[in-house]
Amino acid sequence: MALGEFSLIDRFFKRAAYPLGIDVGVGDDAAVMSVPAGHRLVACKDVLVQGRHFFADVSPHTLGHKSLAVNLSDLAAMGATPLGCLLGIGLPTVNETWLDSFVDGFSALAQRYGCPLVGGDTVGSDQGLFISVTALGTLPDQQLGLLRSAAQVDDDIWVSGTLGASDIALRIMQGSVTDTRGQLVDLRTALECPEPRVALGQRLLGLAHAAIDISDGLSQDLSHILKASNVGAVIDIDCLPVHPQLDAFDASLQQQAVLHGGDVYELCFTAPVHARETIDQMSRELDLPLTRIGQICAEDQLRARDHNGRLVDIVNRGFDHFSGGGA
Amino acid sequence: MALGEFSLIDRFFKRAAYPLGIDVGVGDDAAVMSVPAGHRLVACKDVLVQGRHFFADVSPHTLGHKSLAVNLSDLAAMGATPLGCLLGIGLPTVNETWLDSFVDGFSALAQRYGCPLVGGDTVGSDQGLFISVTALGTLPDQQLGLLRSAAQVDDDIWVSGTLGASDIALRIMQGSVTDTRGQLVDLRTALECPEPRVALGQRLLGLAHAAIDISDGLSQDLSHILKASNVGAVIDIDCLPVHPQLDAFDASLQQQAVLHGGDVYELCFTAPVHARETIDQMSRELDLPLTRIGQICAEDQLRARDHNGRLVDIVNRGFDHFSGGGA
Repeated sequence: MALGEFSLIDRFFKRAAYPLGIDVGVGDDAAVMSVPAGHRLVACKDVLVQGRHFFADVSPHTLGHKSLAVNLSDLAAMGATPLGCLLGIGLPTVNETWLDSFVDGFSALAQRYGCPLVGGDTVGSDQGLFISVTALGTLPDQQLGLLRSAAQVDDDIWVSGTLGASDIALRIMQGSVTDTRGQLVDLRTALECPEPRVALGQRLLGLAHAAIDISDGLSQDLSHILKASNVGAVIDIDCLPVHPQLDAFDASLQQQAVLHGGDVYELCFTAPVHARETIDQMSRELDLPLTRIGQICAEDQLRARDHNGRLVDIVNRGFDHFSGGGA
Repeated sequence: MALGEFSLIDRFFKRAAYPLGIDVGVGDDAAVMSVPAGHRLVACKDVLVQGRHFFADVSPHTLGHKSLAVNLSDLAAMGATPLGCLLGIGLPTVNETWLDSFVDGFSALAQRYGCPLVGGDTVGSDQGLFISVTALGTLPDQQLGLLRSAAQVDDDIWVSGTLGASDIALRIMQGSVTDTRGQLVDLRTALECPEPRVALGQRLLGLAHAAIDISDGLSQDLSHILKASNVGAVIDIDCLPVHPQLDAFDASLQQQAVLHGGDVYELCFTAPVHARETIDQMSRELDLPLTRIGQICAEDQLRARDHNGRLVDIVNRGFDHFSGGGA
């Protein structure tokens, strides 16, 4: 290969000047940062593997974006403010054009959310490509974040944005659904370029109770909140915010995608009834749909209510990275 | 496969009670920690890939140990105190016995160095196994750590422990060197179970100038210090601390292993001459050999001085993960 590990780091990752608070960045044994006084540290790590989380021919720019976005989404689900990130990458080959584009996608998002790349590791991989990002953030000392265990009976359940687009895009790309009306171009943006809801998470601190980002599907991720909080939920199936371009597909496929489709990276959160007005106002200010989709209840089940008021159990069919399939 | 992602995390990684300062551990969107008042945050990430950094049939217990050890070694090279770590792992299959042993090796080291596992991500990998660990640590506010750029002309150059064992072990295991005297059992401990020099790093803060951990070979890693500090060095080739069991192998192979062999995880550091006595005392207290191996000089070359006082250039032949070969 043309480039050694050290010139790789120098060339592709030592780009930007660091903002205040990053005392030592890429290039030493470790990064050194200042956590602002009166703040806690928040840390998360998400791994993406070729063939599991992305296709081999994915655009490197969108892959760079998504690698960081899924981690910023975890910070958002805690209500944290991004501080910096580390990138581990296993590369089968070193293609400079590819890498440049990957770093562009990664860096643009990092810059937009004030989350500079401060360190990491580039290694050769004899098999496929994989990416492991760690995102660091901060929370005010008096906060523990929007914990999964904090949902309370009678809380409203909310989701940001719309649901279902990533799942349908993936099905079209995998060939199991036909794109008769040519909507893949728009739908795959949701799959490949999710926008982490960082500003929303920050604003929900102190207002919402529990939160999670929807990576494995609404049913599965909401179930994590229910289990951790020892409560149940009823979802109003007709209130779910369906992505507008999903009406080209049949109703049962739509419902499947909306309820169980993964790779969404919207926030699902619970909040007390008295917060409704504030959250609606927040939605307008952020120019981001925030939709009430149901209510937390004491019975520890996840059920859906249809337009006739009938309650049916929701079978958890979200994506599990170990069950194969999916991206 | 038998286990889903969520039960994997629950079963194998939610083991220990967290020490004070870990506010939210494994099981939410992100971990939340308190960085002690008056301290900075230190963060590093090392990736290990099957076939590049370890053999497919490596003992899972030692692999668990090493995955964390190489990261603690980076913290040590900054003089940082461990705070917590995150583990990303790509698994081709879920073998519970294997995973239990891996977590045992990882957790034992984590516990010993006060670096609890606070989060991470387990994913399926269609190809080989890979591991990505992020270690977090702290430094007193008045310190930036033992930076590579801090070496000064006339500094002594020191290394901890002994050199060469990992390289010879690897050569024997790869079949390029014959283990005529049956020493692999001992030598491979250096390769597979390195001990991170955390206590040494902490004590060197404020005393030593530059430091690096020897992962790619003394010549290559010392060169990073020289380049970052814009200085050169002369190494007294006869002063290098050779692992005692290397005398079974021929002299040129020994020298090659000691100068250029990677996967050592000892610290190489520079310190002013007046610190000699303190460092010797430290060596006794830590029961760890600390050996003066040369001097920093103004001319920006890395040279070796032999027992006749002759100076020869050291050609950098350390390990580069992109040049193939090596573990």
